[in-house]
Amino acid sequence: MSTPDRLIESTRELLWERGYVGTSPRAIQRRAGAGQGSMYHHFSGKPDLALAAIGRTAEEMRAGVEEILDGPGTALERLSAYLRREREVLRGCPIGRLTQDPDVMADPALRRPVEETFAWLRDRLAAVLAEGRDRGELDAGLDPGPTAATVVAVLQGGYVLARAAGSPEPFHQAVDGVLALLSRP
Amino acid sequence: MSTPDRLIESTRELLWERGYVGTSPRAIQRRAGAGQGSMYHHFSGKPDLALAAIGRTAEEMRAGVEEILDGPGTALERLSAYLRREREVLRGCPIGRLTQDPDVMADPALRRPVEETFAWLRDRLAAVLAEGRDRGELDAGLDPGPTAATVVAVLQGGYVLARAAGSPEPFHQAVDGVLALLSRP
Repeated sequence: MSTPDRLIESTRELLWERGYVGTSPRAIQRRAGAGQGSMYHHFSGKPDLALAAIGRTAEEMRAGVEEILDGPGTALERLSAYLRREREVLRGCPIGRLTQDPDVMADPALRRPVEETFAWLRDRLAAVLAEGRDRGELDAGLDPGPTAATVVAVLQGGYVLARAAGSPEPFHQAVDGVLALLSRP
Repeated sequence: MSTPDRLIESTRELLWERGYVGTSPRAIQRRAGAGQGSMYHHFSGKPDLALAAIGRTAEEMRAGVEEILDGPGTALERLSAYLRREREVLRGCPIGRLTQDPDVMADPALRRPVEETFAWLRDRLAAVLAEGRDRGELDAGLDPGPTAATVVAVLQGGYVLARAAGSPEPFHQAVDGVLALLSRP
């Protein structure tokens, strides 16, 4: 890996583990095995590196979602596959956790990819839900917009409950609960 | 307010706004208008103060939930009143945000009230859901445990989506979506 790549990957890990406030330029350099001069040669500072790191994480997240939601199966099967795919539940969502970082939320450039990723995810899930409804797989009265917001909230809130419990169990319960509500004949 | 009370209230506010990592003893003292000597006279340090602050927040949260869930109305009316009550959506949940603080989660004493509050909330909601099911107000096939986890996750994830969007709108959408799923005849 090139030095800029190592710096970006280290920033991604630290943002996920410690958050923005808890991530110092020195910690990034240490984890990347790069000197201060090298870091400032490639990036103007922590905000610049964080922007690259968040952008890369958002891109990976979208690709992972598309792979499942564009795949084969009914709408409910694809939703279920997405909600139940393997996750590091206790680490939480690398994008969602950024919403708890006051410095990320206060910086429009850093907040933009977070906002766009969730808006995109809600739209994508709403399209799958509308498809399922129109094909008669899901309830005819289902409103795709609010239901998509519910599905994304269940994932994000599931991470919160899992971390609170120190166990992935409540995450899986929350997912089971929403899938049961969606599956009712 | 007494000095210990002012210190606890200042810690509560700062934990909510900045998180544990972002809250320094000096910032607590400044907000409380208390000196360093006074703070260490009443509390052994930041963890001790945080424990008092988290305990007080958890207690208030429980009282607020009980007031609605023990009130009048059908199970669905009480759930709806709880989910739709006035909230500072963009500030998020003062208990939920602590799950994103690595230092809080790593300290068993600080994590305990967070864990207990969510476990209590899930149990309390499961009881209301079971009551609604048994009275024929909710679907006969509803499983109270997972559904309660879904409801709590929708709230916690709704806060995440609202902060990401910089608007309370996705929170309200997520709540509308889960209530519509629960209300289906």
